[in-house]
Amino acid sequence: MASSSNPDDVEALVRSDDPEHPANHICTLCAKFYSLGWVTGTGGGTSIKHGDKIWIAPSGVQKELMKPTDMFVMDFKTKEYIRRPETHKPSACTPLFYAAFTRGAGCCIHTHSQWAVLVTLLVERDFGSDACFEIEEIEQIKGIPKGRGKTGNLGYYDRLIIPIIENTAREEDLTGSLEEAMERWPDAYAVLVRRHGIYVWGDNVHKAKTQCESIDYILQLAVEMKKLGLPWAK
Amino acid sequence: MASSSNPDDVEALVRSDDPEHPANHICTLCAKFYSLGWVTGTGGGTSIKHGDKIWIAPSGVQKELMKPTDMFVMDFKTKEYIRRPETHKPSACTPLFYAAFTRGAGCCIHTHSQWAVLVTLLVERDFGSDACFEIEEIEQIKGIPKGRGKTGNLGYYDRLIIPIIENTAREEDLTGSLEEAMERWPDAYAVLVRRHGIYVWGDNVHKAKTQCESIDYILQLAVEMKKLGLPWAK
Amino acid sequence: MASSSNPDDVEALVRSDDPEHPANHICTLCAKFYSLGWVTGTGGGTSIKHGDKIWIAPSGVQKELMKPTDMFVMDFKTKEYIRRPETHKPSACTPLFYAAFTRGAGCCIHTHSQWAVLVTLLVERDFGSDACFEIEEIEQIKGIPKGRGKTGNLGYYDRLIIPIIENTAREEDLTGSLEEAMERWPDAYAVLVRRHGIYVWGDNVHKAKTQCESIDYILQLAVEMKKLGLPWAK
Amino acid sequence: MASSSNPDDVEALVRSDDPEHPANHICTLCAKFYSLGWVTGTGGGTSIKHGDKIWIAPSGVQKELMKPTDMFVMDFKTKEYIRRPETHKPSACTPLFYAAFTRGAGCCIHTHSQWAVLVTLLVERDFGSDACFEIEEIEQIKGIPKGRGKTGNLGYYDRLIIPIIENTAREEDLTGSLEEAMERWPDAYAVLVRRHGIYVWGDNVHKAKTQCESIDYILQLAVEMKKLGLPWAK
Repeated sequence: MASSSNPDDVEALVRSDDPEHPANHICTLCAKFYSLGWVTGTGGGTSIKHGDKIWIAPSGVQKELMKPTDMFVMDFKTKEYIRRPETHKPSACTPLFYAAFTRGAGCCIHTHSQWAVLVTLLVERDFGSDACFEIEEIEQIKGIPKGRGKTGNLGYYDRLIIPIIENTAREEDLTGSLEEAMERWPDAYAVLVRRHGIYVWGDNVHKAKTQCESIDYILQLAVEMKKLGLPWAK
Repeated sequence: MASSSNPDDVEALVRSDDPEHPANHICTLCAKFYSLGWVTGTGGGTSIKHGDKIWIAPSGVQKELMKPTDMFVMDFKTKEYIRRPETHKPSACTPLFYAAFTRGAGCCIHTHSQWAVLVTLLVERDFGSDACFEIEEIEQIKGIPKGRGKTGNLGYYDRLIIPIIENTAREEDLTGSLEEAMERWPDAYAVLVRRHGIYVWGDNVHKAKTQCESIDYILQLAVEMKKLGLPWAK
Repeated sequence: MASSSNPDDVEALVRSDDPEHPANHICTLCAKFYSLGWVTGTGGGTSIKHGDKIWIAPSGVQKELMKPTDMFVMDFKTKEYIRRPETHKPSACTPLFYAAFTRGAGCCIHTHSQWAVLVTLLVERDFGSDACFEIEEIEQIKGIPKGRGKTGNLGYYDRLIIPIIENTAREEDLTGSLEEAMERWPDAYAVLVRRHGIYVWGDNVHKAKTQCESIDYILQLAVEMKKLGLPWAK
Repeated sequence: MASSSNPDDVEALVRSDDPEHPANHICTLCAKFYSLGWVTGTGGGTSIKHGDKIWIAPSGVQKELMKPTDMFVMDFKTKEYIRRPETHKPSACTPLFYAAFTRGAGCCIHTHSQWAVLVTLLVERDFGSDACFEIEEIEQIKGIPKGRGKTGNLGYYDRLIIPIIENTAREEDLTGSLEEAMERWPDAYAVLVRRHGIYVWGDNVHKAKTQCESIDYILQLAVEMKKLGLPWAK
């Protein structure tokens, strides 16, 4: 039980000189994401799974100003918080991050990228509310892996398909439809949330971050293509 | 009377090692706002109320280069300046900031964000000069509180309504219509000024800053939606 | 004659611990302008007049990487170079900067801002090749002074008028038409150059920099207004 | 043979205090390119030829986080790797960079700039799949040299012509068509790759970097011109 943990051991979970320690890494990643416009106004979040523990950025904080001591740490097996900063609320994204971790992810990023929001609206208007975002023959697609358990990344002639789920009043209520989308499109490393943003995950921090960048690049490109009257697929 | 104050006490009002001291905080906030394009060319401003005093960025200075010693400090009750840097002019925004402070705000931010200006023009053209900016079903709306004295933030299905007032030749002449808008829409934490920008306030610095970011995000999104022919409300 | 100058005295012209010394100031300004997209690819430039001397950024250098020792220094009266770095070419903008200095400017900035280029094309198409850029009722107009020898800045109801001159094959050949525009619109603090960029000047560095920012803000806004079908004037 | 090299000599190839040493320079350049959106998600790359050696950024790394020790070093004559970091894969761009080096380049930059991708799509739609990107009478064109072995840069009245090649499934398979384009347009310092990005090279690092900036500026301007209905050539 979390309450029986040695306080020193608990604090050691967020104190390290290693910039790639999860507690440090989430801070530098989120500062970068802030400058990319992904986590403005306390929106969005990031979580890293390392060993049998999960580090999670708290809810309602300025993401570019976080310190390692702001992090929540959860035991992956028991789903109990090992470390829970008293001044913060746990992130409502936690069950969504968890859904990615149970499918092998090592890091999950949630952004409110405007390109993501706009693409969900364009898909709905032009292809219907059941449609996925689909695009093909864009080099950056090669930045996305083929799918869990498959070797290598998508090729230039592969179509990138990102499912879209409908938004709900409460973030945690997205969990069911996110998991459904994960089951229905088992190769996807990202799910768009209509009028909300996107969840992107990867095997590790490096992959989650670069996949999130590649997808955001493609979403921005897709919006610009629409403005110029260029189709997403032949 | 301000002139009778002990000079050492007055200088202590802008000298602190605490980065969250109002005199320091206004400087770091405005440097960030400059990089967001909100306070370009000496435009815009920021004010913080702490205890019974108000710190205010001066008029006509480069907002990204301010030093704590540039700050004006006003007594909230007497409205007299306790500290008034000789080389600077007080901000014409002062009575507008003050209007927010009398309604419980702890921090008020004024930006010349282009998204704000464009939205005021789009609302006027498409909905008439009496219309507010209204948008619904965008996740980031959840970054805005329900209203003064109410618990919690707007929900995803709540409509965000931001009143718009007409610009005047002199900034201080906006005070009357700003206060009128504050009375008519008592739940609003922001008022747009046509062809000018926006005033956003919050209970404290954290809230004012993150609410200002969330609103600016929504205004930018609204402009992009117009470019793409997407409606703001169903 | 420049060649008779004491080498130590000459080097002292670009060595100072004061960040506002012209040789230092041009470097920090240009680094900022680079991040604003104004001086990409060695384009654009900046010059400061202090006392009877002019400091000028060299031609063909990466503007964000300049060092104080890269600066040319010219005697204002004799137009001779007091300091001329052997590894650099003098800026072709020099006679244009000089034209501003003879009309009382203390600093002149030349940018290749894309908003400036686009506005010159939009004015030509929509108002003809003799037309100036004109806009009214935008708050940021108040960031521009009324004109040389006049007190105060433009008001919100004043129309901002920026003349446009045609580009020439060689930058220095713009001097004649720039001076003509300066004579014909003596209140202007900026001249647009079709398909090229803009020259903005001010009484001192602070004014030139903030006026350049205000004008660039207005030019960007004007382009966005065109995209959205919003008129520049009533 | 590479394997016979003295390990100390090999490591000396990437260890220097000189910020302009190729191994250091590639790192600072790529960090800058990341902030320009050119190498997001491990995309793009940069290579420098110095003397008889080529330094190349590895494949699949976050370009803004590279260290000098991440670099591959190749012997220009033998095309063998002198230094090959075990943890990295060599860049698939290597034969394309090499094609530029055999034509006298000292540095070659590959970006996934969205402006480049969009321009290739606009040219295809509006001028056909055999067309080059062509633009004229834009001042920034003067940032591009006339051609290999020719003196000076393009003039304002010269037309900038950038050939476009079709993308292939594998980056290295672009080599043939890139070399063909280099032969057919021997004056070009850049080749666009449809739906992919651009290769830009120059006599040295300074020229490659500033030419890449000038071209990207022109490509962005060209996209904005299309949005506003402005033609690229008279």
